[in-house]
Amino acid sequence: MHYLEQLNWRYATKRYNGEPVPETKLQNILEAIKLAPSSLGLQPFEVLVIEDPELREKLAPAAYNQPAITESGALLVFTVWKNITNDQVDAYIDQMARIRQVPVESLDGFKNMILANTEGKSAADLFQWNARQAYIALGYATAAAALEKIDSTPMEGFNPEKVNEILGLDENGTSAVLLLALGFRDEEKDPLAKLPKVRREVSLRELSFNMN
Amino acid sequence: MHYLEQLNWRYATKRYNGEPVPETKLQNILEAIKLAPSSLGLQPFEVLVIEDPELREKLAPAAYNQPAITESGALLVFTVWKNITNDQVDAYIDQMARIRQVPVESLDGFKNMILANTEGKSAADLFQWNARQAYIALGYATAAAALEKIDSTPMEGFNPEKVNEILGLDENGTSAVLLLALGFRDEEKDPLAKLPKVRREVSLRELSFNMN
Repeated sequence: MHYLEQLNWRYATKRYNGEPVPETKLQNILEAIKLAPSSLGLQPFEVLVIEDPELREKLAPAAYNQPAITESGALLVFTVWKNITNDQVDAYIDQMARIRQVPVESLDGFKNMILANTEGKSAADLFQWNARQAYIALGYATAAAALEKIDSTPMEGFNPEKVNEILGLDENGTSAVLLLALGFRDEEKDPLAKLPKVRREVSLRELSFNMN
Repeated sequence: MHYLEQLNWRYATKRYNGEPVPETKLQNILEAIKLAPSSLGLQPFEVLVIEDPELREKLAPAAYNQPAITESGALLVFTVWKNITNDQVDAYIDQMARIRQVPVESLDGFKNMILANTEGKSAADLFQWNARQAYIALGYATAAAALEKIDSTPMEGFNPEKVNEILGLDENGTSAVLLLALGFRDEEKDPLAKLPKVRREVSLRELSFNMN
């Protein structure tokens, strides 16, 4: 099947049949998340994979009890760094030196460019910047899920403070920005399963937009 | 080729060979952008497709003269709504009624849910929210490009005021948040073309993270 047909098959699934996500498919989706681009390559986020039914029951009230939280096969929580510390930048540069087999010092120019970007920003701005990178990764996750024929539900509607508290995120300096349920749609229960997609044309060629 | 190999082939290309993006491939990438999920389905963004060399020469200084602006085959500019107006919500609801062949009034509940989300937010918050949706679409664009064997370069490093001015965006209430060059890498000139990817493990299973 052409990948555009698979992307077209995807929709924000409201009801799931409870079946778990096969391990290989889950691993592939996580690998796609890892391969997503991020600004300066920093990957300023972590993705928690929650399959435990009890923990999902506990999270549900923090997300308006959306059925996808508990009925899906797995729940991913996209959490982002609330800040970017010099230690995190150092760890990234060290990893780059290791993987590319170059001296750490040879990356000083790149490191200084990163620090010029991070040290000038407020914590609030860094958080927004980091959150945006997690949204790119969400794109990769939902696209990969569609290619795996796994249904998905991105959710912004939840109380981050409560989710952070339940998952103990405050202690490690991250905050939840997105939930993503994964699993198999329940076509009987989900009124959206058979509805056609609603999409505007969002692209404009240069001939059709007004330039100064 | 497995799609993960194709995603792994992708990297933020710094130098291009100037060849144009074949029309079918460009259309497929734009179709993928259109299929990306967005909060409440609002698609609060537009993507301008710029192939004209003169216009790209004009934009280059507003983006630190990154070679990808002018050397690539096409430049996409992701612009987002600075706000969400009731007219935009109405247009979306009207389109949904048309496509799903239901009376507009039957969508009142959904419309009120959207308005409860938009009317409570400041313009600054709406802009951030909209920008995040464009980042999901950027994920779809770069993933689709990789599947098409088209190189890409996402760019946040530019002066939005200048880009908005050159493209006349202020008048239609949008602002540029991302640039995406598309084309074919120049392996000779691009020092990054042959370097291995640097990636942290970003996913944690529930057994390996601390819960309260």
